[in-house]
Amino acid sequence: MKQNFFIALAFCSFLILSSCNTTDKGYGNATYFTINGDELVRPVDYRSWVYVGTPLTPNDMNNGKAAFPEFHNVYIDPVSYDYWKEHGTWRDGTILVKELISVGTKAAVSGNGYFMGEFIGLEATIKSSEHFPDEPGNWAYFSFTNPEGENLKNTGTAFKTNQCNACHAASAKDDFVFTQHYPVLRSSKGVGKEVIPENTASR
Amino acid sequence: MKQNFFIALAFCSFLILSSCNTTDKGYGNATYFTINGDELVRPVDYRSWVYVGTPLTPNDMNNGKAAFPEFHNVYIDPVSYDYWKEHGTWRDGTILVKELISVGTKAAVSGNGYFMGEFIGLEATIKSSEHFPDEPGNWAYFSFTNPEGENLKNTGTAFKTNQCNACHAASAKDDFVFTQHYPVLRSSKGVGKEVIPENTASR
Repeated sequence: MKQNFFIALAFCSFLILSSCNTTDKGYGNATYFTINGDELVRPVDYRSWVYVGTPLTPNDMNNGKAAFPEFHNVYIDPVSYDYWKEHGTWRDGTILVKELISVGTKAAVSGNGYFMGEFIGLEATIKSSEHFPDEPGNWAYFSFTNPEGENLKNTGTAFKTNQCNACHAASAKDDFVFTQHYPVLRSSKGVGKEVIPENTASR
Repeated sequence: MKQNFFIALAFCSFLILSSCNTTDKGYGNATYFTINGDELVRPVDYRSWVYVGTPLTPNDMNNGKAAFPEFHNVYIDPVSYDYWKEHGTWRDGTILVKELISVGTKAAVSGNGYFMGEFIGLEATIKSSEHFPDEPGNWAYFSFTNPEGENLKNTGTAFKTNQCNACHAASAKDDFVFTQHYPVLRSSKGVGKEVIPENTASR
């Protein structure tokens, strides 16, 4: 009787440990994306990941023809963020998501500037030697934005290598990722497990 | 024998359900801030909360004298976010954190614009009828930025009512919060549990 009780307890303890926090299970097997054929399934839970920063290159600062006229809210999956903090490199299996938000109003009670407008698209990049062995750094880039309609696409096809990877290879600071524009990533590169800087001198 | 086995299973199922996700436990008791005396203890885990947006009112768009010259990365505690999605109002106990990031470079390979520089400060606002019964809407505002040194302050004293609440009362759309500048909050106000818009027409 007691034996079965303790077997049940042990089994449930395993369930508790294995069901609560994937970041405690190690880095190797935690996957935050799905590839179907050669398409990436649109991530839907990225708002619970780690936000790393928002670059902005609006049309009115680029002669009305900005290559990226939106706010780009960038998120990384939490396990790859933990790996980055520990190792300062990107693990095989990293995914970053870029949520595109239009420029809304340019004036508010707080002053002149740029304020977020509407949600207008979604993009992602993944590093996967399994799925993209021939891409530089094993990175591939995807868009789920649908120029012909309001609904986001449920899957995205990888852009051709020269459409994204060329710029990333030439100018991104850390293995095809523009960490120079993301203080959250710069300050945590290989420094351990802390989440936020304790002081304003942190880089 | 079987009875004890199932009692153990039931007990452990309860443990699993209650230990994994605080957002499923109800709203009332989840607290994400600590008040010591009349000071707010600096939050340290906000990067695991929900990011809602980044307004920017840089100095060079405000005659060199912007009231808020930094990027403001705003986070909300996850339980208050769930409450907002369900009810469209702010629960007693809400906390929003504002991470201040300087304007860094204004040009990159992606174009001219504004890119995040360095981490330069931290602010927060809380809604608490228990601690601030006499403040408008029970909201109080705090800064942990230390103008005299690099280290953030570990606690913050509430600003006087007319320093923050006047503007928030006059111009913020939803109970002293400027939801009009945060599409994450606008799109989710009282609409249920979904985390992201499925289409680009969502507000």
